[in-house]
Amino acid sequence: MATAVRIWTNARLATLDPKRPGLGIVEEAALVVRDGCIAYAGPAADLPTTLLTSSDLFDCEGRWITPGLIDCHTHLVHAGNRANEFEMRLAGASYDEIARAGGGIVSSVRQVRAASEDDLVQETLPRLDALLAEGVTTIEIKSGYGLTVDDELKMLRAARRLAALRRVSITTTYLGAHATPADYRGRNRDFIHDVVIPGLRAAHAEGLIDAVDGFCEGIAFSPDEIRLVFDAARALGLPVKLHADQLSNLSGAALAASYGALSADHLEYTDEQGTIAMAKAGTVAVLLPGAFYFLRETRKPPVDLFRKHGVPVALATDNNPGTSPLTSLLLAMNMGATLFGLTVTECLAAVTREAARALGRIEDAGTLEVGKSADFCLWDIGEPAELVYRMGFNPLHRRVWRGE
Amino acid sequence: MATAVRIWTNARLATLDPKRPGLGIVEEAALVVRDGCIAYAGPAADLPTTLLTSSDLFDCEGRWITPGLIDCHTHLVHAGNRANEFEMRLAGASYDEIARAGGGIVSSVRQVRAASEDDLVQETLPRLDALLAEGVTTIEIKSGYGLTVDDELKMLRAARRLAALRRVSITTTYLGAHATPADYRGRNRDFIHDVVIPGLRAAHAEGLIDAVDGFCEGIAFSPDEIRLVFDAARALGLPVKLHADQLSNLSGAALAASYGALSADHLEYTDEQGTIAMAKAGTVAVLLPGAFYFLRETRKPPVDLFRKHGVPVALATDNNPGTSPLTSLLLAMNMGATLFGLTVTECLAAVTREAARALGRIEDAGTLEVGKSADFCLWDIGEPAELVYRMGFNPLHRRVWRGE
Ligand SMILES: [Zn+2]
Ligand SMILES: [Zn+2]
Repeated sequence: MATAVRIWTNARLATLDPKRPGLGIVEEAALVVRDGCIAYAGPAADLPTTLLTSSDLFDCEGRWITPGLIDCHTHLVHAGNRANEFEMRLAGASYDEIARAGGGIVSSVRQVRAASEDDLVQETLPRLDALLAEGVTTIEIKSGYGLTVDDELKMLRAARRLAALRRVSITTTYLGAHATPADYRGRNRDFIHDVVIPGLRAAHAEGLIDAVDGFCEGIAFSPDEIRLVFDAARALGLPVKLHADQLSNLSGAALAASYGALSADHLEYTDEQGTIAMAKAGTVAVLLPGAFYFLRETRKPPVDLFRKHGVPVALATDNNPGTSPLTSLLLAMNMGATLFGLTVTECLAAVTREAARALGRIEDAGTLEVGKSADFCLWDIGEPAELVYRMGFNPLHRRVWRGE
Repeated sequence: MATAVRIWTNARLATLDPKRPGLGIVEEAALVVRDGCIAYAGPAADLPTTLLTSSDLFDCEGRWITPGLIDCHTHLVHAGNRANEFEMRLAGASYDEIARAGGGIVSSVRQVRAASEDDLVQETLPRLDALLAEGVTTIEIKSGYGLTVDDELKMLRAARRLAALRRVSITTTYLGAHATPADYRGRNRDFIHDVVIPGLRAAHAEGLIDAVDGFCEGIAFSPDEIRLVFDAARALGLPVKLHADQLSNLSGAALAASYGALSADHLEYTDEQGTIAMAKAGTVAVLLPGAFYFLRETRKPPVDLFRKHGVPVALATDNNPGTSPLTSLLLAMNMGATLFGLTVTECLAAVTREAARALGRIEDAGTLEVGKSADFCLWDIGEPAELVYRMGFNPLHRRVWRGE
């Protein structure tokens, strides 16, 4: 018997294939899926006849197909929310007042520590479902609200379990160096040695980590402290990423690049030197306009520098309870265009091909190319620009993950 | 036989009842619906026993109930979209270049004129459904892309037909004075006399108009021209509204107030004099942060002046293809908070009670008060602030319109 083959006919493809210009558009196209992988993506007229035998045909009725969307930076696993802080802030409370009321990241840490692994899974599912409903097929989830070895492991186990509950690819990132808990205040290095690195090794031993991240910022960890974590990651053979240059320029982008990081994220304050370092290292710039918007920031990431030096740009929701309670990657694209001035083509590449690159998954995801996993979306749109232009509208017709 | 009564028990109410402070919260509450109207909304313990007989009980399981959401300013009926202009603008095209490529409002006018009434209904339904899915129970829809008598009537008839196809209250607003079509360029008064006022009378004769609107702006109609339209509306006994002070201060707010307008909308450039006039007239300030955001404007409406003088503030999507392709009233609330600094209570009042006021529907909608239509929402949230805080997440559990 032939293997299971389905041909998606009468489609318009935005392949994002880098061998084609722009969005890699193919009109009057066909997409062939065999064993969950893409066996052909191109003009229907050129379809190899060998693929036509014993195939299941699906008529796309002229719909657009894009690669499945990839949300490459989230803190999706968390407990509770911080709507009350949001309300206090709007009512005029200062950050100090909010902190005294138990707010800030310590609030999320407290709630995650109090939650069981089951609780975390149950609380995260509606957020995950919101993303999937818009066509997300791959999502990255970070730890970082546990800040003890056990609680970091709990978050990562919850993230792994989500992948068994929904048809989606999940990559996990260890973010032990997210914040310093109260009992280590002023002792970042002790925290790194006592908790972050032991947690990293324990999580890796359990197969819970795909990448290692840190928050390099005046209010978080210094470049030298981040190096301790990255050195430990390197010793385990794990790729790194970095929350860098969001609120100030600590040369986080250059630091990330010096470790060959998959991505440096946020980057509002990154300078040309950091940009050049990223370009040389192939480090992806992951922009997070949801946090920029929610925090009412005004300093934008240097998109022109990224273009000038050829740094690939990705966009993500940064879903988190404190600074980006955003569960729409379509809206992240609109914000990338409206707030940061990315073009439509840049936005769509930013949530597909470049997001895959930011996760080290470019060999398997992010474009409609032969051999990759058959993760894609059918859309009820007249042209790809509509995916970026609309706000709060979901034109997804069908989401396909691993061919189904 | 007793009339149909349903008691919604075990609920938490944000009644927005102005007799109660803030959101008008009642915990451990019950809501009683009889014949599609609210017969009781208050503490379960005080429920009149007469209402308990032969009643149908519905357990809300502790969920929050708010009034149904009201989107009080939309151009929801339109044809096509302007994603291509959005794409051109991001790619660096000037407004002139876009205009030369056939873009701008003339593009929407061309597409609406080419569409049949059926086409308009079919194209609008997905947008309407997106709003309903988030709990909207009343929506205002404007004409204004026809700009001939026949095409304006076509738009209004399409808007009325939507109300027969979905369980929602629709109010229609005649916006003949939206833009000057090419054949009347430089002859605004001729356009008003030849088209706007005859269209107004014809549409009114057909029962198609609930209110009359105009666009008072340097690029649209002058205050004196708007007066011609408003005088005609007044002669027909129709209430007025105005697109005012969006891009410059033409004292549009004061003009609207001088006609006792239901609302003045946009208001980025409104001054204290205009604010005082609105307060005296009871004119609602309808703020449209979607357009502010999409156009990357920087001048915010004077929220502090509205507070100082007691001008009621509403929020709406302004859904339209050119400057606000927004179909989420929840997101409009988040933008009202994040971009304009409205508090959570102000935002929630702005899409319920004050939006009802902006439509002249405060007697029947906008709060959970006895005698009003039973239009309300059940939400899967822990506190009302979550409705404003999240971005791109829909926690609606159930939408109830006229008791069902
Ligand atoms: Zn983050
Ligand atoms: Zn408008």
